[in-house]
Amino acid sequence: MRMYDLIMKKRNGAALSAEEIDWMVAEYTADKIPDYQMSAMMMAVYFQGMTGEETAALTMAMARSGDMLDLSAIEGVKADKHSTGGVGDKTSIALMPMVAACGLKIAKMSGRGLGHTGGTIDKLESFPGFSTEISTAHFIEQVNRIGISIMGQTLSLAPADKKLYALRDVTATVDNLSLIASSIMSKKLASGADAIVLDVKTGSGAFMKKEEDAFALAREMVMLGKSAGRKTIAVVTDMDQPLGCAVGNALEVKEAIETLRGNGPEDFVTLCMTLGTQMLLAGGKAETNKQAEEMLRRVIEDGSALRKLAQFVEAQGGNASAVYDTSLLPQASLVEEIRSEEEGYLTRMVCDEVGTCALMLGGGRETKESEIDLSVGLMLQKKVGDYVKKGDAIAAIYANDEGKLAMAKTRFLKACYFGEKAPERGSFIKGIVR
Amino acid sequence: MRMYDLIMKKRNGAALSAEEIDWMVAEYTADKIPDYQMSAMMMAVYFQGMTGEETAALTMAMARSGDMLDLSAIEGVKADKHSTGGVGDKTSIALMPMVAACGLKIAKMSGRGLGHTGGTIDKLESFPGFSTEISTAHFIEQVNRIGISIMGQTLSLAPADKKLYALRDVTATVDNLSLIASSIMSKKLASGADAIVLDVKTGSGAFMKKEEDAFALAREMVMLGKSAGRKTIAVVTDMDQPLGCAVGNALEVKEAIETLRGNGPEDFVTLCMTLGTQMLLAGGKAETNKQAEEMLRRVIEDGSALRKLAQFVEAQGGNASAVYDTSLLPQASLVEEIRSEEEGYLTRMVCDEVGTCALMLGGGRETKESEIDLSVGLMLQKKVGDYVKKGDAIAAIYANDEGKLAMAKTRFLKACYFGEKAPERGSFIKGIVR
Repeated sequence: MRMYDLIMKKRNGAALSAEEIDWMVAEYTADKIPDYQMSAMMMAVYFQGMTGEETAALTMAMARSGDMLDLSAIEGVKADKHSTGGVGDKTSIALMPMVAACGLKIAKMSGRGLGHTGGTIDKLESFPGFSTEISTAHFIEQVNRIGISIMGQTLSLAPADKKLYALRDVTATVDNLSLIASSIMSKKLASGADAIVLDVKTGSGAFMKKEEDAFALAREMVMLGKSAGRKTIAVVTDMDQPLGCAVGNALEVKEAIETLRGNGPEDFVTLCMTLGTQMLLAGGKAETNKQAEEMLRRVIEDGSALRKLAQFVEAQGGNASAVYDTSLLPQASLVEEIRSEEEGYLTRMVCDEVGTCALMLGGGRETKESEIDLSVGLMLQKKVGDYVKKGDAIAAIYANDEGKLAMAKTRFLKACYFGEKAPERGSFIKGIVR
Repeated sequence: MRMYDLIMKKRNGAALSAEEIDWMVAEYTADKIPDYQMSAMMMAVYFQGMTGEETAALTMAMARSGDMLDLSAIEGVKADKHSTGGVGDKTSIALMPMVAACGLKIAKMSGRGLGHTGGTIDKLESFPGFSTEISTAHFIEQVNRIGISIMGQTLSLAPADKKLYALRDVTATVDNLSLIASSIMSKKLASGADAIVLDVKTGSGAFMKKEEDAFALAREMVMLGKSAGRKTIAVVTDMDQPLGCAVGNALEVKEAIETLRGNGPEDFVTLCMTLGTQMLLAGGKAETNKQAEEMLRRVIEDGSALRKLAQFVEAQGGNASAVYDTSLLPQASLVEEIRSEEEGYLTRMVCDEVGTCALMLGGGRETKESEIDLSVGLMLQKKVGDYVKKGDAIAAIYANDEGKLAMAKTRFLKACYFGEKAPERGSFIKGIVR
């Protein structure tokens, strides 16, 4: 087989066979196919697309390019959740303990974030001492013992995807549905969970701006999960404004804790309930939506979800006291309220811009090597649809640098739009694909 | 400027500006843009195409990427000819002396061949001692003195094209009209001639199989030449069977010499007369087709074209006696006639396959490093349209190895097709684009 012939075949619009895709991924991972041929292939795929069969073959080939995590030593159904990412997305930190408290085994691999705020791992590191650099043995033992563990993605997890994504990132070949779907799903499949619930974001703050594109991605990923024999459900959700009120690592952890105490913001609670319901259904812990919702409500009311979080933090070396006393989380030295200079309904809050404010404050990574300031960020006091008077606080900024604070404040105000009429708002949950 | 942004721009269907193309070519030539980004760009160009302005900008940027040959020290109009290549194409060896004998200055750069048989330089090396590795000063002095010189392409001639072509060659991005045209024309423009005549081949043995594609390439190249201020004319000609009768380096030289003696095969004579006419018109040596044709006929009849070849060979260190005694050219040790096993009209001779026979005999290069056996090849004794009886000789094979001879013979017979009716044949000259 020659890579040249495969590029030509794809360029001319034909479908590659599973054998061809397997060979290509294996050779590329082994550095036997040069980047310049693979980038030409990716651009050809961008224009010619891939069939469902091709995408499934690519996904499995990438999943198998490194170690496939074997979770068979864990009893029962193992569930995982993945979000396509957005501003203020602290979902895993609240949702995983909720679902684990309902008896579903949570064996999840997470990554660090790039841009806006950190990823789930960065956020969890707000708990002093917490580490996701644990062995697979520790991971499996912990899930068996307390029902929940989150491990950092190992280098050997889908290395083909890692290499290919880095190439696509510098050759303008990222935004192709099949390639996005296979990149996400290859990691999920290699991570070994039996049931996978996907949170596909749509709106101005999401990768998929248009709802129809989000649904297309959701359908593609569900197809890929199912064709690999995993229970897979996708929920398409709104990301037109930040999720909840907290944007920033420790602030988001605090909001997740508040949510487990029953005091979460409406949209975030809705999201956790919906995803949790789907996870419990997929994992066979509930038979109906109603039953699942009741289970989730109960673990919040009786405090068992919060205790599960504390147990989880402790099991991975973190200071669990911070779950009960959030003043032990990283604290910013400066807090300032941003007051509105206008009056009217808050009609729009440009989601990406709010994320950029957090990044400017030091809360996100500009490059892979950047250090993150976990304490900084924003707490929204108004959300889209609220009526705001001149002088009302819209948000509070948490910072450690006066200059950065001032810059973020100006930027935040520019991202808020006001009008005389209350904006029309679609439902937060756009739909479920299964 | 960032290459990523340019790839994205082209991928999305926009046209790059001349500044962007200049920057891209300069940075790529200086190894500051990696191959994997350029190959993605080339694939995006394959799908999105380039405007005439973009193609002209790319051509000039590549032409200027190395030394632009300054031929201003040569008096009068300097003419060059380029063929898109085919089987048995010995045109330069007969045509250049003809035109030079008519008083037009021939300052030509040529390359070595890959595949089939060698290039013009390889063929000329059939004259013992002949060399094209001459200095620019020698080149210019020789053109001023005897009106003709052929120099090997220097490393500094359009290095961007060299680098880009090598990349396209391994990433399935060769066959795009704009890229093909700009690759050819960048070298021609850097070579410094004022008048450029292009021989664009079409048919089964040509790069452009379809006549309409050949005309499109011809139009594109003429546009590029003109937009750079050069007189440029393209002739679209047939390459459905080998040109003339000789296929193989020394054999082709011998046929070129026979042509200068007035004994050339019909199709080859037609080609030389047509191209020569266009060169004399473009170079201002003739005013009408008729006048040009008479001049060309005269230099053959009075022997001055043959003497010009001898003078040219001698000026570049070759044994000019071989022009008058072709037994001094490399001779194969084995000659065998191939006799037909069928009877009927020769309806088709698969051109590429005849070329492959010459390659198998050792007459061409499989890789850049291969040594060429100049003596081997085939002399066709029948051409398409001829009636062949069982046992008639179709061709003679010239070889230095019994095994290779046997293999080439079998392959040659397979490439000949016979029928009961004489095949319909289009005209050899398909058209002229100016």
